[in-house]
Amino acid sequence: MAEARLRDVAREAGVHTATASRALNPHTRDRVHPTTAARVDAAARRLGYEVNSAARALRTQRSEMIGVLIPDISRPLYPPLMRGIVETLEQHGYTAILSGTDEDEQRERRLFASLRARSVDGFILATAHLHHPILDDAARLGVPTVALNRTAQDAPVSSVAPDNEGGMADVAAHLAALGHTRIAHISGPLDTSTGQARALGLGRALEALGIRAVPELSVEAEVYSISGGVKATRQLLQRGTSFTAVVTGNDLLALGVLDVLRENRIACPDEVSVTGFHDLPMMDRVSPALTTVHVPQLDMGREAARLLLAQIGGDRAVQHVVLPVELMVRDSTTRARDANGARA
Amino acid sequence: MAEARLRDVAREAGVHTATASRALNPHTRDRVHPTTAARVDAAARRLGYEVNSAARALRTQRSEMIGVLIPDISRPLYPPLMRGIVETLEQHGYTAILSGTDEDEQRERRLFASLRARSVDGFILATAHLHHPILDDAARLGVPTVALNRTAQDAPVSSVAPDNEGGMADVAAHLAALGHTRIAHISGPLDTSTGQARALGLGRALEALGIRAVPELSVEAEVYSISGGVKATRQLLQRGTSFTAVVTGNDLLALGVLDVLRENRIACPDEVSVTGFHDLPMMDRVSPALTTVHVPQLDMGREAARLLLAQIGGDRAVQHVVLPVELMVRDSTTRARDANGARA
Repeated sequence: MAEARLRDVAREAGVHTATASRALNPHTRDRVHPTTAARVDAAARRLGYEVNSAARALRTQRSEMIGVLIPDISRPLYPPLMRGIVETLEQHGYTAILSGTDEDEQRERRLFASLRARSVDGFILATAHLHHPILDDAARLGVPTVALNRTAQDAPVSSVAPDNEGGMADVAAHLAALGHTRIAHISGPLDTSTGQARALGLGRALEALGIRAVPELSVEAEVYSISGGVKATRQLLQRGTSFTAVVTGNDLLALGVLDVLRENRIACPDEVSVTGFHDLPMMDRVSPALTTVHVPQLDMGREAARLLLAQIGGDRAVQHVVLPVELMVRDSTTRARDANGARA
Repeated sequence: MAEARLRDVAREAGVHTATASRALNPHTRDRVHPTTAARVDAAARRLGYEVNSAARALRTQRSEMIGVLIPDISRPLYPPLMRGIVETLEQHGYTAILSGTDEDEQRERRLFASLRARSVDGFILATAHLHHPILDDAARLGVPTVALNRTAQDAPVSSVAPDNEGGMADVAAHLAALGHTRIAHISGPLDTSTGQARALGLGRALEALGIRAVPELSVEAEVYSISGGVKATRQLLQRGTSFTAVVTGNDLLALGVLDVLRENRIACPDEVSVTGFHDLPMMDRVSPALTTVHVPQLDMGREAARLLLAQIGGDRAVQHVVLPVELMVRDSTTRARDANGARA
């Protein structure tokens, strides 16, 4: 029945049935001359013809749908990633099914299974935790999968991540050049891939610069959020060890640090410099404008979609793409004061 | 074949085939006792059974997928809407296919057709423009559809929007109480439903307060963005008519106003008060913290999904839901100075 109607469209457009089929399939449309494709569209419209994707999915075993698992699309980090994914998928006739996991592992497994049941052709997983059963499942089942904004530590799954170590090396060099030696660190949760990579990167960079690590100046935030930063900074201050700079694992933690410094009348950057990571929207407009590491989120989303489409196309090599980051020096960092309050 | 395997799962779980089917279908799962559903899940896992949604979609004529058309998920306004949509759909076993339209009408029509071809059960359209052919198409074709963050002026399509008029009435009353009478207005584009509703709302409210509208103090921004606000504010200043407050159609426009005031050394709020609309993330942290109208974006997304699911369930009454907003008074507004510079 669908075939018969496709023949009608082809006849109306004056093309072969195969040409009409290619023109109406977003996946193969670029193999048809644009004016021919437009003629087929017009004919399909006139005849009220609609492609039935469910029938096509059964025939071709391709749904041209990708499952995207993201903890929470409303957190400022994810929307540009998602835009890059959607944009790139659509250029290739694919669409994105977006699911919110809230970092609940049970929920993630349920969504993964439910999306598999919808015959998605692959997955982009931006779930945060280091050891993740879904990544193992995906690898075991041979489902095309890309891990985004995280590395897949154990499972042989391709990934796209920012250069977390390089970003932290830039932060360390910047602070060292400003004369800081007593540098505190509010890390992200260390069971996340980003939290761990950034903490390791900072530690290595400081060591290479000859700056001694002080254990009392390191606090692990429970969660990547402003309130997580507030809580960790209060712990840091309670320890009573002095410092002239605070490096944080992401911008939200840095905003929490700024809040606690303000409530304790510690001036930023005059008394304490603060750095973030990510360069979320508006970080150039908060007060003081935040020195932070810019992560190319849009490009990360695009790259993840490209890697996944290559896998679906048959390229099964596991690739780990690391995108360069850039230190944005703004108003929250300045030269360190020495113990007498003079600038270094 | 799928049927036979479903029977295996049912036998393994010790339940009727119909019960196993209901348990494995996210749409009907809540009709099965949780412990039974868990037993069916375990049996399905043991037997490696996977529901084939494409086959089910052909049988039931339901795909349990919703098409969501949003101009650009990376703009700060949309992510909380999307979170509300995804969350509510998932509670009912539905998933969201997200498409970015970039407000390109051709592209919107193409995406709409392509999603229809994927047999989505309905649409949530957050496209911005007032007169929109897709809304007509949706109404004509009888496709369940909800317009989000906009009203559907001509087409009989349900909608969810914030109380734009009420928000502007609150802004006008706030500024009037502070003694402002020379109030400039940078509106959003007037071919958008929000731009028009807010401009009308402000005009009516000022009139009711006995504040005369001054045509030279009204500028329409070309686009809802910081640079749109910058350009409109420059036009406003060039006209040379004095004012003590600027009301804007959204927060990004207000940030543009703040930039131009700063570059002209006009102090906000001391010389000119500024208001926004939306209360985007970080508006409490920019400098000065922005007085703005809080729009309950998460709730709007949830409400749109709820309305749409009701339509899919058979409730075809056209409903226009208007959600209440709240004026957030912060640091960008203060008492007006009179012509001599004294506070009103």
